[in-house]
Amino acid sequence: MRDNPIVKGQMLCVALNDSNQFNAMQAEFNQPPYKEAPTQPVLYFKPHNTWNIEGAEIEWPQNANLMVVGASLAVVIGRTCCRTSVEQALDFVQGYTLMHDFSLPEESYYRPDIKGKCLDGSAPIGANVIPAAQVNDLSTLEVITEINNKQVNCTPVSQLVRGVPELISIISRIMTLQAGDVIAVGFPGQRAEVKQGDLIHSSIAGVTELNNKMGVEKV
Amino acid sequence: MRDNPIVKGQMLCVALNDSNQFNAMQAEFNQPPYKEAPTQPVLYFKPHNTWNIEGAEIEWPQNANLMVVGASLAVVIGRTCCRTSVEQALDFVQGYTLMHDFSLPEESYYRPDIKGKCLDGSAPIGANVIPAAQVNDLSTLEVITEINNKQVNCTPVSQLVRGVPELISIISRIMTLQAGDVIAVGFPGQRAEVKQGDLIHSSIAGVTELNNKMGVEKV
Repeated sequence: MRDNPIVKGQMLCVALNDSNQFNAMQAEFNQPPYKEAPTQPVLYFKPHNTWNIEGAEIEWPQNANLMVVGASLAVVIGRTCCRTSVEQALDFVQGYTLMHDFSLPEESYYRPDIKGKCLDGSAPIGANVIPAAQVNDLSTLEVITEINNKQVNCTPVSQLVRGVPELISIISRIMTLQAGDVIAVGFPGQRAEVKQGDLIHSSIAGVTELNNKMGVEKV
Repeated sequence: MRDNPIVKGQMLCVALNDSNQFNAMQAEFNQPPYKEAPTQPVLYFKPHNTWNIEGAEIEWPQNANLMVVGASLAVVIGRTCCRTSVEQALDFVQGYTLMHDFSLPEESYYRPDIKGKCLDGSAPIGANVIPAAQVNDLSTLEVITEINNKQVNCTPVSQLVRGVPELISIISRIMTLQAGDVIAVGFPGQRAEVKQGDLIHSSIAGVTELNNKMGVEKV
């Protein structure tokens, strides 16, 4: 487990925020017990034991055949933020980085999947926070992920169901955000499969990048 | 928001661990999408913004008609604990205290209920950690909660579906636990309703107690 210089309070992730996936899942959403699509952002936590850093080797869980990874733009909160408006939301942002969410493949989007989502060291974050003032227009950014130098995902921020200001506004009405809280705003609906020893490289062109390597199962 | 002197890493709660509730819910468990009872502990987090202390007044959320509270024995981890056995699990415990989980009433046990569960300051914990060596037999403990001096719940630790050693063992295989992590091991299946201004007192006879007061909605 590594000390992480960026995340101080909590690392919050937004699930089901890729509009391609969200639209494709309408039939499934209409099944019991909900019978409709979620009307609010679906959030989950990556707790303290998951925090990790740029360059870290990701521990391979015992008896896992496969893991998956998604990369997300990560928003670092700069000051206490409670019930802010969409218009003012970005004023509370210190800056941006990238986050990798490694997990076991999900069998269902019901019930919190703590076992699959909270593996030790499964949430590395970029080495630096790019100051918000240096990022002119979030909607032009794309998060690209390559595995062993082959592109597996490209998620434009403009493709998110809810964008950064809307998410900050909604979440700040659920919980007070504090300096050093991080929100991973959206992952590709189709997470990429990774194997032992794979190299994972994600980037936002001109902004930042994040590199990790999959470990090998300890026998 | 208050600094909490006990919780350092994370506060993890076990849901659906009251055997009375668990047994009564079998029919509901058998509905889609699961069609069976959970085979593993159902866990949720109380993140940093929720941590609070003995004696604190609990903020009343805007537009809430009702809140509910459950009290739980809280296990404070004393040292790094990874994949421990049931037999050795208690060796990793620093001690015990009480925790109140305040939330909005739950409409469903599907989907993580971040909005209802993660209210600011909704997870106060006792003032002291009672050293593990001073607690001889967990199975004799009972968590009693009174609201305005009237008893509303009594949950014997022996009534939990999974006891403390089993929970620590299972959770330590999901995530490495660290000193200052806290596990709230089980709440009464029927959480007690609380109103603005109510006084909540929980106790474990001869061990510890926890007192909170419900705030009044700010207009």
